[in-house]
Amino acid sequence: MYTADYLKSFVQRVFVQMGCPEDDAAIIADVFIKAELRGLPSHGMLRLKDYFQLWQARRINVRPQIKVVHETPSTAVVDGDNAVGMVAAYRSMQIAMEKARQVGTGWVATRNSNHYGIAGYYAMMALQEDMIGISVTNANPLVAPTFSIQRMLGTNPLAVAIPAGKYRPFVADFSSTPISRGKLAVMEKKGQSCDLGYVQDKDGNPSTDPGILSKGGSMLTLGGDYEHGSHKGFCMAATIDIFSAVLSGANFGPFVPPSVAYLPVLEQKVGEGTGHFFGAMRIDAFQPADHFKAKMDQWIETFKNAKPVPGKKVIIPGEPEFDNEERIARQGIELVPAIATDVKEIADFFGIPFEV
Amino acid sequence: MYTADYLKSFVQRVFVQMGCPEDDAAIIADVFIKAELRGLPSHGMLRLKDYFQLWQARRINVRPQIKVVHETPSTAVVDGDNAVGMVAAYRSMQIAMEKARQVGTGWVATRNSNHYGIAGYYAMMALQEDMIGISVTNANPLVAPTFSIQRMLGTNPLAVAIPAGKYRPFVADFSSTPISRGKLAVMEKKGQSCDLGYVQDKDGNPSTDPGILSKGGSMLTLGGDYEHGSHKGFCMAATIDIFSAVLSGANFGPFVPPSVAYLPVLEQKVGEGTGHFFGAMRIDAFQPADHFKAKMDQWIETFKNAKPVPGKKVIIPGEPEFDNEERIARQGIELVPAIATDVKEIADFFGIPFEV
Repeated sequence: MYTADYLKSFVQRVFVQMGCPEDDAAIIADVFIKAELRGLPSHGMLRLKDYFQLWQARRINVRPQIKVVHETPSTAVVDGDNAVGMVAAYRSMQIAMEKARQVGTGWVATRNSNHYGIAGYYAMMALQEDMIGISVTNANPLVAPTFSIQRMLGTNPLAVAIPAGKYRPFVADFSSTPISRGKLAVMEKKGQSCDLGYVQDKDGNPSTDPGILSKGGSMLTLGGDYEHGSHKGFCMAATIDIFSAVLSGANFGPFVPPSVAYLPVLEQKVGEGTGHFFGAMRIDAFQPADHFKAKMDQWIETFKNAKPVPGKKVIIPGEPEFDNEERIARQGIELVPAIATDVKEIADFFGIPFEV
Repeated sequence: MYTADYLKSFVQRVFVQMGCPEDDAAIIADVFIKAELRGLPSHGMLRLKDYFQLWQARRINVRPQIKVVHETPSTAVVDGDNAVGMVAAYRSMQIAMEKARQVGTGWVATRNSNHYGIAGYYAMMALQEDMIGISVTNANPLVAPTFSIQRMLGTNPLAVAIPAGKYRPFVADFSSTPISRGKLAVMEKKGQSCDLGYVQDKDGNPSTDPGILSKGGSMLTLGGDYEHGSHKGFCMAATIDIFSAVLSGANFGPFVPPSVAYLPVLEQKVGEGTGHFFGAMRIDAFQPADHFKAKMDQWIETFKNAKPVPGKKVIIPGEPEFDNEERIARQGIELVPAIATDVKEIADFFGIPFEV
């Protein structure tokens, strides 16, 4: 078990050793550890090795000149200069929030970035200032559009964070696939089969093999098949891809660069790096924030009290992750042995102490 | 078979007879007929009777004073004054576009409105000026959140319209349920059973009865069940409800007023009328529009050429509806006998000629 502070300070030192400025390294560490605390380890310490290897392969820029390349009062396009994704994303969301302070809302499309961790982190930045935050990103292609057998899209998530009053904020943070790549990987490691509706084989047949991705298969969009609305999951993933990449000038769809160094750099580019899109809307650009937050409390109470299926209860988006944060901050963060070993190797490489 | 112009002019006359100003009636008629042309008759002439009966029951306002009640350079809240939904929505989208002209983007939350027809209509208004258009609405509660047996949400749709160059625009217009209420009704009328994953019975058990809604059952969110991501469909529907109603001051979730006169006015109100939310983003607030549209063409080509499942092809969002528009504009609009009879009764009521 590790405390959040211990891991955060460790991750920060690692990125400083790679050459990142202190404050950039602090941002990256905070996003990593927030993923662990929120119970999303697939976006936490597991990814340290990926970034370490990208750095070794000189495929990321630890001293980026992140800059606004185009703007209006409510919009900007940001060039991330091939930064660690968390740094480009954090700076972009700051710009969106600054624009919202000025004209009510701010919208930033970011290109030339990399994997940015949990989408919800950036959306939740807006909560501190009574704003609604929005964050989407494209990602490595693993998902086939409806009626295709080709991996064309990432699991493209959408995060929306909305302030409440006495209740914790509403935080929807969900991918455009039925389940995550990480959950498939866990089932594969355990030798389990998976439900129908998650993946298809290389010929487009329904499959229950969670390891089918390594055999030419692909993930399906939310909905699973056309009869159950997979074209709507495709609409969501496609819209996120266009906002993240076409609007920013990043690589779209199948051209998103790999977020791991063991996959080669793609030959064809249609833009610069990975793309994100961020939004910030000041609540008081619509109504007084206190009034809105009281209404959100009423909304949350209404849905919490919806008549449940016997033995279940309605879950307000974000609740499980806030519960995790409280519990894991108290109990400590556990790293599975394989990840702890990877982290220890990186620690040794840089001569930074790390207890396993 | 009717020409679009014949029906449009007829619908306009009906609403003028109800007391609407000519230009408001023209907007309403255009949205009705656009639904027919796009192959979405569940939002077309079928709804004329609903609005006629709401008017007879004095439950809509045909002479609304639609006004902006709060604004910033990029946002507004509009009070629709209980207008026909199409009128409140059209005016709201115009305001969003005017704000986008000024500061790059415009975002309008609308309260005190009614059923607005096809979400895509308003999103597509933005295309004329090389803007991206966004339109969402809440709607009568028919859908249960994950783990609930209570109807709390509408089929809350999201429409996003994005300009392209040589290709037709990308127009995603999709509800947050696996299939539409209208398709369930058709299956029910035909005495068919439906797939699992669309509806549940009053106790939350999976059901294949498309008529289960009249027996206390409810529709499920996109994903169907928790294992297949229904909580993600719930996230989408809930976010749309909050943007449409909490941000605007309309009724949220279970309190959305009925869009038909045969259902009584709800006793409890938590806001004013039905709510919508609109967005307009000028493409050139991010990059030159010509450059963007060429990139969109490349995006569309890439996805059109994705390797298909044998015998199928990838469908770009919006393609089927544009195909319908071309075909139905050429062939004419067909009304099923039951609808033609309803329309004829309304025509006779007002003494407007209508051929059946």
